[in-house]
Amino acid sequence: MAPSAHPSSSPLLTSKEEEKYADVKWDELEFALVPTDYMYVAKYKQGESFSEGEIVPYGDISISPCAGILNYGQGLFEGLKAYRTEDGRITLFRPDENALRMQTGADRLCMTPPSPDQFVEAVKQTVLANNKWVPPPGKGALYIRPLLIGTGAILGVASAPEYTFLIYTSPVGNYHKASSGLNLKVDDKHRRAHSGGTGGVKSCTNYSPVVKSLIEAKSSVFSDVLFLDAATGKNIEEISTCNIFILKGNIVSTPPTSGTILPGITRKSISELARDIGYQIQERNVSVDELLEAEEVFCTGTAMVLKAVETVTFHDKKIKYKTGEEALSTKLHLMLTNIQTGVVEDHKGWMVDISS
Amino acid sequence: MAPSAHPSSSPLLTSKEEEKYADVKWDELEFALVPTDYMYVAKYKQGESFSEGEIVPYGDISISPCAGILNYGQGLFEGLKAYRTEDGRITLFRPDENALRMQTGADRLCMTPPSPDQFVEAVKQTVLANNKWVPPPGKGALYIRPLLIGTGAILGVASAPEYTFLIYTSPVGNYHKASSGLNLKVDDKHRRAHSGGTGGVKSCTNYSPVVKSLIEAKSSVFSDVLFLDAATGKNIEEISTCNIFILKGNIVSTPPTSGTILPGITRKSISELARDIGYQIQERNVSVDELLEAEEVFCTGTAMVLKAVETVTFHDKKIKYKTGEEALSTKLHLMLTNIQTGVVEDHKGWMVDISS
Repeated sequence: MAPSAHPSSSPLLTSKEEEKYADVKWDELEFALVPTDYMYVAKYKQGESFSEGEIVPYGDISISPCAGILNYGQGLFEGLKAYRTEDGRITLFRPDENALRMQTGADRLCMTPPSPDQFVEAVKQTVLANNKWVPPPGKGALYIRPLLIGTGAILGVASAPEYTFLIYTSPVGNYHKASSGLNLKVDDKHRRAHSGGTGGVKSCTNYSPVVKSLIEAKSSVFSDVLFLDAATGKNIEEISTCNIFILKGNIVSTPPTSGTILPGITRKSISELARDIGYQIQERNVSVDELLEAEEVFCTGTAMVLKAVETVTFHDKKIKYKTGEEALSTKLHLMLTNIQTGVVEDHKGWMVDISS
Repeated sequence: MAPSAHPSSSPLLTSKEEEKYADVKWDELEFALVPTDYMYVAKYKQGESFSEGEIVPYGDISISPCAGILNYGQGLFEGLKAYRTEDGRITLFRPDENALRMQTGADRLCMTPPSPDQFVEAVKQTVLANNKWVPPPGKGALYIRPLLIGTGAILGVASAPEYTFLIYTSPVGNYHKASSGLNLKVDDKHRRAHSGGTGGVKSCTNYSPVVKSLIEAKSSVFSDVLFLDAATGKNIEEISTCNIFILKGNIVSTPPTSGTILPGITRKSISELARDIGYQIQERNVSVDELLEAEEVFCTGTAMVLKAVETVTFHDKKIKYKTGEEALSTKLHLMLTNIQTGVVEDHKGWMVDISS
């Protein structure tokens, strides 16, 4: 349930903080929608370029019943986070990467995207407009959700004649409630993506199809689902909303971005950090057999950042992996979150300060 | 372009007809949106049952930016047609089949559908409210588009807490402009669906991913695209929006509905009609090699009904098939459209008279 936004339900806030912060119980934040004050909207009409876009009050949008997104799933989304640092700055984590990924996705779904510059500028404007919804340091982040959707009316299957680029935000806590590691189920029935499809871009069409698998797994007390490749059913691909890594010896392996898994920005960043501290990174097909023999397994994604996997269940086998303070996953998680929250200096050029 | 709805641009109509018919240039109808007067809307909220639904003026709907359909593609659609017969009745073609298909799709996408009875009743109400938009006999049909979409706000990937069941309509002419047969391109790069995915239900997520392939083919003067199976790339599956049949000798073959192609209602009806006149029907894997050696090829779907394929191009091979008056496709097309338009008596129980 989303935290309540009633003033009376937030005894923790002082009158000074009320100016700086929205009235949210920051310690109770989950990964659920807490509507903020403003959103960004820009439009593209066939044959024109994207409108400049504007910050408007957050609220329902008006859309044709015949819109491409409602009928044919012509839509992309992105997800990124804004952080408030101890010294009071507001920063974004690698927004340029999200901007570029939207370009690739728009090409696959035959849409015209906003330019990367417009994308990043729009994200900045949206976060600054919702400044007081960025959680206090250490309490979470402001999750930012850019959408590019076909809002033009189209009866036959084709690209819509109008697109809307929209950004809304929500303060969030942890994606998974479990404080310990994830308990994954390997789904050997449903598949997420196939070669020649859209599994490699952040298309809305990759997500509703995994919900059935996710509900089945959660009803059996699993945290999430690991999908296998559609071609052979032998290699691991992706969790419903994040990438996967396995560790054995000095080698960290993760499935390659060859069109059926999302090229995660956290995935890319964690690979770089692991390499920095002496691990060998292999992007290659990883079989279920290898997964079951790994020493550590962990997942990465914008919403969860990095989460250790405690167990994997495949048919009747259940494997337990190393987690905890001595685990590589714990070390990498700390390295990345320290950069993201400004606890250590960012030598990577990943953080964008938007408060100055 | 949609036909104009300006009164001044329709010199064909007499004042008497103006009462019975909307102001449309019926002879110029294409398969494009011509908005009609009314639509049907019903809502479902988690833990409740579907609201009764009501006929409201056709127009934009209001939706949360965080809705499941906009972010995660949680949506299904259906397509069916209403016909006006020579003796003035208005009929529907097998609406119960669409109602049942929406049930199956809703189960796959974890949505609660309206009951089959509510579905059919809603279709009837919507058509009767738009009575004057049903084209005159022989001029086309009123295309009916039911949607079931996740309109509730949901931030993490999950089933939306609210669904909307909506029906809108549009008078339509032919789906493909070509009066002769289709010129299909076999796409050996993109795939449409995979086993364990959603290719067997009418999910919006199956459609935006094929647009790229369709645009590429149309820019090379092909009419449409034929997809191969994702597992082997050897068998034919489906055109972007319709099913496919091949004829050799006395045997009509069509790919099986095993989860990667849509179980078409026209497909099912045409199979039955072909069987009635002595052909053997085989639902089985059909290889590209067999396609290239067939005598006739044809496609079926609600929008196009049945259309002969004149040529298929696979890599650098281009095969020409039998079409025209002597072709089986022409015979089957006539058999089905005669039933649909009331020219011959319906002994199948397929047509539902909603005007009485």
